[in-house]
Amino acid sequence: MTMTPAELAELIRLVPDFPKPGIQFKDITPLLKHGRAFKSSIHHMAEMFKGETIHAIAAPEARGFIFGTSLAVEMGCGFLPIRKPNKLPYETKSHTYDLEYGTDTVHMHSDAVGAGDRVLLVDDVLATGGTMAACAELVGGMGGSIVGCGFLLELGFLNGRDKLKDHRVEVVLPE
Amino acid sequence: MTMTPAELAELIRLVPDFPKPGIQFKDITPLLKHGRAFKSSIHHMAEMFKGETIHAIAAPEARGFIFGTSLAVEMGCGFLPIRKPNKLPYETKSHTYDLEYGTDTVHMHSDAVGAGDRVLLVDDVLATGGTMAACAELVGGMGGSIVGCGFLLELGFLNGRDKLKDHRVEVVLPE
Repeated sequence: MTMTPAELAELIRLVPDFPKPGIQFKDITPLLKHGRAFKSSIHHMAEMFKGETIHAIAAPEARGFIFGTSLAVEMGCGFLPIRKPNKLPYETKSHTYDLEYGTDTVHMHSDAVGAGDRVLLVDDVLATGGTMAACAELVGGMGGSIVGCGFLLELGFLNGRDKLKDHRVEVVLPE
Repeated sequence: MTMTPAELAELIRLVPDFPKPGIQFKDITPLLKHGRAFKSSIHHMAEMFKGETIHAIAAPEARGFIFGTSLAVEMGCGFLPIRKPNKLPYETKSHTYDLEYGTDTVHMHSDAVGAGDRVLLVDDVLATGGTMAACAELVGGMGGSIVGCGFLLELGFLNGRDKLKDHRVEVVLPE
């Protein structure tokens, strides 16, 4: 039986001072370890985008793969990995974006997205939204149409929704 | 309708000279992009371990997450991420193993596996078997019992099965 978002929220563990002092990290591993909870979280994500035409789900490594691939199998559509530099074996397209200090780059295979493909983007946590916005730019630049951005949870104080304001944003466990 | 292993094998792309000259890389992304093929590969993995009592599926990042999480949702069991150093937020247990040059280390949360838990290990490709053997040592050291090791495909010439000879090894697309 599907667990409610309120029940799922109880399985998020707060870890103080990770990855650096003063940050309270929302650890999703107790939820993943609980088979019914994990399955329920995928069920809720699928429900949020039910009725949409979706050709593929794309997600950035590594934690995005956890929800992106499971959701793709649940919804019966393809999965497109978005990876850091030098990880994908074939020819890639990339998009570079600014971090607080320096830059980062996301890659996809150049044949991953065709013109007009409707792509759903997925990640575990909406933080600053920087990575997801870069993923959306990358998919859009390849001719894809963004169905929306789905997340398990969000860190509202980082205002990540601002960076994704041109897209539909759905969160299973909103703040 | 489920696709056969022979049909799935046609969706593996051979990429020459990746990650270094002389290596022919088996690229699984065309299979992942094909929704019915990806779902079929998960179905075949589930069939291979049907009838086993499985408490959780564990898989190493990043490509192991692709099959490990989807299979966990398909089989209704929990998922335990196995990660590189400094990625998991909570207290961890680790196992260090030898590479051709140097060493590598795999981590799991210290509360991920309990005594007697039956854990299925999953990864995309069986190459040298070094990473999977290290994962098995890690899970075993925490008191877990290894149900087996499941892979989508294998590179037979690397003799990875030798390193996993104490475990049941199943491959969806054996050579």
